[in-house]
Amino acid sequence: MIRYTRPIRFEEVDAARILFFARFLNFAHEAMEHFFGGLEGGYAKLINVRQVGLPAVDVKMRFFAPVRYGDTLEIDTFTQKLGTRSAVLLYRMRRGDAVAAEVEHTVVTTDLARMVSVDMPADVRDIFSEHLVKAAP
Amino acid sequence: MIRYTRPIRFEEVDAARILFFARFLNFAHEAMEHFFGGLEGGYAKLINVRQVGLPAVDVKMRFFAPVRYGDTLEIDTFTQKLGTRSAVLLYRMRRGDAVAAEVEHTVVTTDLARMVSVDMPADVRDIFSEHLVKAAP
Amino acid sequence: MIRYTRPIRFEEVDAARILFFARFLNFAHEAMEHFFGGLEGGYAKLINVRQVGLPAVDVKMRFFAPVRYGDTLEIDTFTQKLGTRSAVLLYRMRRGDAVAAEVEHTVVTTDLARMVSVDMPADVRDIFSEHLVKAAP
Amino acid sequence: MIRYTRPIRFEEVDAARILFFARFLNFAHEAMEHFFGGLEGGYAKLINVRQVGLPAVDVKMRFFAPVRYGDTLEIDTFTQKLGTRSAVLLYRMRRGDAVAAEVEHTVVTTDLARMVSVDMPADVRDIFSEHLVKAAP
Repeated sequence: MIRYTRPIRFEEVDAARILFFARFLNFAHEAMEHFFGGLEGGYAKLINVRQVGLPAVDVKMRFFAPVRYGDTLEIDTFTQKLGTRSAVLLYRMRRGDAVAAEVEHTVVTTDLARMVSVDMPADVRDIFSEHLVKAAP
Repeated sequence: MIRYTRPIRFEEVDAARILFFARFLNFAHEAMEHFFGGLEGGYAKLINVRQVGLPAVDVKMRFFAPVRYGDTLEIDTFTQKLGTRSAVLLYRMRRGDAVAAEVEHTVVTTDLARMVSVDMPADVRDIFSEHLVKAAP
Repeated sequence: MIRYTRPIRFEEVDAARILFFARFLNFAHEAMEHFFGGLEGGYAKLINVRQVGLPAVDVKMRFFAPVRYGDTLEIDTFTQKLGTRSAVLLYRMRRGDAVAAEVEHTVVTTDLARMVSVDMPADVRDIFSEHLVKAAP
Repeated sequence: MIRYTRPIRFEEVDAARILFFARFLNFAHEAMEHFFGGLEGGYAKLINVRQVGLPAVDVKMRFFAPVRYGDTLEIDTFTQKLGTRSAVLLYRMRRGDAVAAEVEHTVVTTDLARMVSVDMPADVRDIFSEHLVKAAP
């Protein structure tokens, strides 16, 4: 598990005065970039130089409690499943003791130039493996 | 079904040069605002004046094809399920003939001042009912 | 002058319940894409295929009145100045009769592959010229 | 001066593959929230509880160098002018040794319930004063 801490910003709430629901998915991606911080050159080099990315094929989100401006989310990222080319990331987002949202994010290793799936590079696999949950967390 | 047409804008793609996956959820919400265009004063009045909203409790997304700057999405919005206080909206997002993504969005009618669920107002229910799919579309 | 009409969306207001100030600049860019709608293939083809863009070198914004969820902005786009490689666009954003904001946007024609300024293509120049204001509008 | 460090995220570049120009203004606001981190309860409490905000009346931006995914901006925030109700913030945004952009941001202390200008609270003034540049920095 890798933790990412994210204060809610002024413009991230909506007209109902709560964090806009799509932003949880922005935060999941930020947490994923943080999760891959250990790659040489980070996720940015994977994308920009190695031309390999992890586009989503499936997302499931559950919302449990509203989040407001001034709150801070603690986002814990786990690998829930790991295949040859795909993986499922789980993001548990807590505000204090309460779980505010959970996101499951299925990604497929993709050659960005040709937009076809490819085997996962070893260093990417290592990070997924390191944070793989054996039983449900 | 109500259709909403949405050209992709210059800043909506990501470093992999495809529409950023969270934006499909922004588009789903735009399509929902459009879906409720027939309310007197629109969704804005429901939120601002009547203080009733439809926060998400569950979202499921499937991605089938990448979308790029210059593409236009046709988003068809259906009511998939309708309860006393909750409903499931289905957004089918096509780029030409290809379905690019599908989003299922479960919402709960909520008193925004107290942040508790309430029965659906009759005019909101009428719009959901009108676009309810009997069998899977 | 070319007019672009833009309703404010649910997630575009901030914690002070008014349109977030940076979004006026997003709207200016949307209005610019609309302004260049007459290019063959639109602004998207200019960027994606011809690899020519109009990055900003200077922006000036003045804010006169708050804008809220449920409001609609009418954005009128003019060419204020036209040079060999650069141009100044003026966006006048009204909410009803009141001017809510004005944006001046200086752009430089740029070869995106090499990121150097280049002469303006004839079709781009034609659109700028057509909407050039002789005296202050 | 207060420094704020901001890595560019995956979805913050545009179809020209550079940081989208409006985002510099989002970053300026983030830097301002950071600048007011010393307020009791931060900028969030000022907005949410004390109902006082600092809406913009004027913004000037100059762009000197493109910024890309994988870059990190160092944003130094200064008070350039300080009045009874208004102030001018200057944000200098550097990528390594190069200044990428500068933003001048004129704000007016505002009672958010009534949307009228008010005198600056003492604790807000103290932070502006502490970072006031005497000569041009």
